[in-house]
Amino acid sequence: MTKIITIPDVEKLIAQHGMQTFFRDLIGYLREDFLYWDKFHKIPRIAAHVPNGIIELMPIWDDRFFSYKYVNGHPNNTESGHLTVVALGCLADIATGYPFLLSEMTLLTAIRTAATSALASDLLARRDATTMTIIGLGSQSEFQVLAHLAVRPIDTIRYFDLDPHAMERFRNNMKECGLQLIECRTAEEAVKGGEIITTATAAVGHQEVVKDAWVLPGMHINGIGGDSPGKTELSLATLKRARIFIEFLPQTQMEGEIQRLTPEERSQHIGGELWELISNRKKGRQSEEEITLYDSVGFALEDYSTLRLVHDLTKKYNLGNDFPIIPKLSDPKNLISLLKNHHLN
Amino acid sequence: MTKIITIPDVEKLIAQHGMQTFFRDLIGYLREDFLYWDKFHKIPRIAAHVPNGIIELMPIWDDRFFSYKYVNGHPNNTESGHLTVVALGCLADIATGYPFLLSEMTLLTAIRTAATSALASDLLARRDATTMTIIGLGSQSEFQVLAHLAVRPIDTIRYFDLDPHAMERFRNNMKECGLQLIECRTAEEAVKGGEIITTATAAVGHQEVVKDAWVLPGMHINGIGGDSPGKTELSLATLKRARIFIEFLPQTQMEGEIQRLTPEERSQHIGGELWELISNRKKGRQSEEEITLYDSVGFALEDYSTLRLVHDLTKKYNLGNDFPIIPKLSDPKNLISLLKNHHLN
Repeated sequence: MTKIITIPDVEKLIAQHGMQTFFRDLIGYLREDFLYWDKFHKIPRIAAHVPNGIIELMPIWDDRFFSYKYVNGHPNNTESGHLTVVALGCLADIATGYPFLLSEMTLLTAIRTAATSALASDLLARRDATTMTIIGLGSQSEFQVLAHLAVRPIDTIRYFDLDPHAMERFRNNMKECGLQLIECRTAEEAVKGGEIITTATAAVGHQEVVKDAWVLPGMHINGIGGDSPGKTELSLATLKRARIFIEFLPQTQMEGEIQRLTPEERSQHIGGELWELISNRKKGRQSEEEITLYDSVGFALEDYSTLRLVHDLTKKYNLGNDFPIIPKLSDPKNLISLLKNHHLN
Repeated sequence: MTKIITIPDVEKLIAQHGMQTFFRDLIGYLREDFLYWDKFHKIPRIAAHVPNGIIELMPIWDDRFFSYKYVNGHPNNTESGHLTVVALGCLADIATGYPFLLSEMTLLTAIRTAATSALASDLLARRDATTMTIIGLGSQSEFQVLAHLAVRPIDTIRYFDLDPHAMERFRNNMKECGLQLIECRTAEEAVKGGEIITTATAAVGHQEVVKDAWVLPGMHINGIGGDSPGKTELSLATLKRARIFIEFLPQTQMEGEIQRLTPEERSQHIGGELWELISNRKKGRQSEEEITLYDSVGFALEDYSTLRLVHDLTKKYNLGNDFPIIPKLSDPKNLISLLKNHHLN
């Protein structure tokens, strides 16, 4: 049997476990798996560049599980009432090759991206950061804020989006979170006073969502939206002022902000990969004045950790349903017996 | 909503549509899709070599659909009552990136491998072939025979497996098919008199399941079991006597019988890819005496065609069930609204 986790299952899971507990647990699972970095077989995701967007498969495996995620990115989908990004994931047993968990991952992708950003902030942002800026108020924005509550004493959110409707939606969704919400009229106003800056826009091409002049010493930036070839959000000058951390160089150099750096600039400005911070091979923030940047593109290991947590928690809460997607046979080579005598026709 | 097709759904589908009709339709879909070969974006499958076997992702896409299959191969699985190969597949809409069909593919992989072999036999075997030999009586064997009934006037099956239990199972499964079943005591005896020879053993390493001396002029061979690096079934000498057809060179040269040929030998003995036969760019059998070989490894396009047929037929027969795996939102950017107010906790 294969367990299938639907959207309502994830909703129930978050309701029972609590959003903050889920984020804290997921950050724990991420730390644990990043520590085993060398044990994982890692490849850049497989990307299909299609007329309206991108479709990706993101596999990763170690000696316990093989996981993969199917995920798309279709920027114009919202015009027809569709989500820009939807996803589904799968966890399989390495020993037998049997998939045992199939899960929705649209919600889970937003959650894991936020959890990984929060983990990066935990490793890189000032310890006393209380003000967070978010620019680009799409599907991920609220999750980004909520995840950060697990790692820093955030009490103030400065937010901005070009779309007034997005501003209103964000305010409505967040108004009862007990945070001071500061609606900003420009990106510049949002960045001013922010200690952790998150950019998560859908803007295509090489944008400057945050101008370099606005970036002050001590800031930590999570660049979320620069995540495919030709799509970046930050100024080249900012990249050269910051110590940059990434997930996995072979993938990030094609997709992240650092795609615009020359190999020489990369070796100069990239501080390392997240796992190196977690395992203390590299130092996190080195001074109160340093500018740090987490150049996020989303890596398969994060989906692996998420599916692992979802697997553990859905067992605990008895959520999800088992479906006969994998045959069960008393003689495992008698596959045709599943068709009874239909094969005679 | 995403439709999920389970093992019982495929069983019902075959019961309603008929196995022979299904094979004929699938061969038709395969021909149609192979004709559009140039429209497909093709990559060799992604293979994870794990301690007990292999796990693969097989994506392919054109301007209509993106399909992928998850499939494993764990030769020792049967010792613990598990199947050697299990699989699941997915079909997604290129325009939106939305997956709309998730299907079991363990049964369907055996069916599509057999259908593609039958298609190759239709293109390459003598038109009047009535006797088929099958060596290796695992999960695929019965499907291989049944698929061939759709393309040639087969009335006699010569069969062999090292395992007496496999011999018995095959005989029991096939005894009411109206075919003359000739149980052979050796592989040599099975090959003798066979006009279409199918090898589908699980043997690891470079084997000679069929010795070259047994291969007579006019035979067509479907080599199914030589399908991963280091795993082949035929004699080098036979490869050099045959005109060889394959699915997709970049993948087959790593996985198929031809992995043992030098580049020079390949250009000498490979007649072409299946799509070239189907589109009449290359000629099929050129004389009654020619030895032809279809060096099958299994290619993503075959899964694409299968999922497309299953999609069409499950609509027709109203099979499968819809599951809320993809969110439906009145505001497609309001992802967190799915969690109602749980995010406050």
